[in-house]
Amino acid sequence: MKIRLIGLGKMGRSIALNLKDHNHEVLGYDIKESARDKFAELKLDVVHDLPSLLKRDEKERAVVLLFVPNEAVDSVLEKLIPILNKDDIVIDGGNSNFNISIKRYHLLKGKGIDFVDLGTSGGISGARYGVCLMAGGSKEVVTYLEPMFKDISQENGYAYVGKPGAGHFVKMVHIGIEYGMMQAISEGFSLLEASPFELDYEEISRAWSNGSLIESALIKHAHNAFAKDSHLNDLEGKIDDTGEGMWMIEEALKYKVSLPVITQSLYARYKSKDNRLFGEKVVAAMRKEFGGHAVYRKK
Amino acid sequence: MKIRLIGLGKMGRSIALNLKDHNHEVLGYDIKESARDKFAELKLDVVHDLPSLLKRDEKERAVVLLFVPNEAVDSVLEKLIPILNKDDIVIDGGNSNFNISIKRYHLLKGKGIDFVDLGTSGGISGARYGVCLMAGGSKEVVTYLEPMFKDISQENGYAYVGKPGAGHFVKMVHIGIEYGMMQAISEGFSLLEASPFELDYEEISRAWSNGSLIESALIKHAHNAFAKDSHLNDLEGKIDDTGEGMWMIEEALKYKVSLPVITQSLYARYKSKDNRLFGEKVVAAMRKEFGGHAVYRKK
Repeated sequence: MKIRLIGLGKMGRSIALNLKDHNHEVLGYDIKESARDKFAELKLDVVHDLPSLLKRDEKERAVVLLFVPNEAVDSVLEKLIPILNKDDIVIDGGNSNFNISIKRYHLLKGKGIDFVDLGTSGGISGARYGVCLMAGGSKEVVTYLEPMFKDISQENGYAYVGKPGAGHFVKMVHIGIEYGMMQAISEGFSLLEASPFELDYEEISRAWSNGSLIESALIKHAHNAFAKDSHLNDLEGKIDDTGEGMWMIEEALKYKVSLPVITQSLYARYKSKDNRLFGEKVVAAMRKEFGGHAVYRKK
Repeated sequence: MKIRLIGLGKMGRSIALNLKDHNHEVLGYDIKESARDKFAELKLDVVHDLPSLLKRDEKERAVVLLFVPNEAVDSVLEKLIPILNKDDIVIDGGNSNFNISIKRYHLLKGKGIDFVDLGTSGGISGARYGVCLMAGGSKEVVTYLEPMFKDISQENGYAYVGKPGAGHFVKMVHIGIEYGMMQAISEGFSLLEASPFELDYEEISRAWSNGSLIESALIKHAHNAFAKDSHLNDLEGKIDDTGEGMWMIEEALKYKVSLPVITQSLYARYKSKDNRLFGEKVVAAMRKEFGGHAVYRKK
């Protein structure tokens, strides 16, 4: 299958190489010249503008795969729509909000263009050697793409999860679970570190990665990190989030579902970057007011 | 190595078969006749009282492995001590509280007997075909046992984690992480179930088990459960706990470490069995008092 790939960052490049390994034809485009150059260096075919990406025989059904940041999807679609034909397919492989993916599905469907929301997981190495894919969209269109999806995913790592939006919805939930699992691991190592035992985290995470009930891709990543830096002394404990955890809490509020652990995991990320600690100052100030308790004053 | 095994339940039987696969000699004893009979049915050697378990040449260093419930360890040790010799080794493979394991180490050490606290993980199938082991105790003694530990554990799944108590401490932290991971997975599926998408949890958990960032032993167990019962209609949502999660919170309080997610996970288990909902009645009653809000009355 010929894939027209937009977004040649780390994920896009890895997916492209994975596609080529499975004898798919890949043509790439990125708005950034540097990304296009890096793509060409990997001996991958690249074009320098969108119209060239869509050049083809009149009858060819174009399959356009997006791996662009969330905030760029709409502007890419805006430029794409005029040069797409009826029955072409656009696949969004990024972490878009599923509510917006549903709107995009209808927007494109209104012009006869098909849209597939594709949740992808596995990190860069997954993208390169076998990704986990959660596809949402009309069954007929996803079935058409399925052989390609199965080629680039790990064995049994692909699922058609349902109607438009379902792919990005399931991926969002996956990210929420990931937040909770990561926070649980974080808390475990916090207690190991606070204990009087002198523990070797590289050793422990290695053992936990082989046969234990918490054996997981995440513990393996923790093990790799400890192998490089036994106490993570090189890092600051600040954690970014890219919105998906927040979307999941928003959906939970909509459906009145209680997600204490995933919510706490998101808050832990916010708190990790809260340099003002204003709420904590409020508590310290009240303790001083009612009980004369000592406060810490800035020097 | 000849292993004298006390506790012939599911874990003990699986460990015994695993040991035999690796050419260790196993002699088993259990206080329950039915457990001894089951052991014998597996063509495993069994004795019918503790003194017979410890019968041997005067010079032989006995290695006694316990797989008994927490609450039975002290009474087993009490009966064992008089029939053990200096330099014999007792290994506690169960989930004892590490603080008590440290006391037991000193109690036995005072009599010249060595004690190893062995955290084990991997469930029944792990015990049978390759377990994850976290051993605590004096380095010399653990080193003596190491070839046997490596034989029954998964490749790279064994670690000597440190001084007496460290094995059960690291296992306790492992269980806390497991609680948090399980609660995160639980919340993810709760949101999937509340959503308007009609999702196939068997399919989704299968895809997540192959190449995703939440790929894990626990997601695989969830997949197996959904494969048997697609919406878990046969189950009640009540969750037991066996104390280790609580011990972890107790340690966190001692060291003033914040474990929001693992604490919430334990509370979620308590709440799952709270049929009285007394605290919720208090809130409902107050809402009625101050705002005349409707309350649900028992019929």
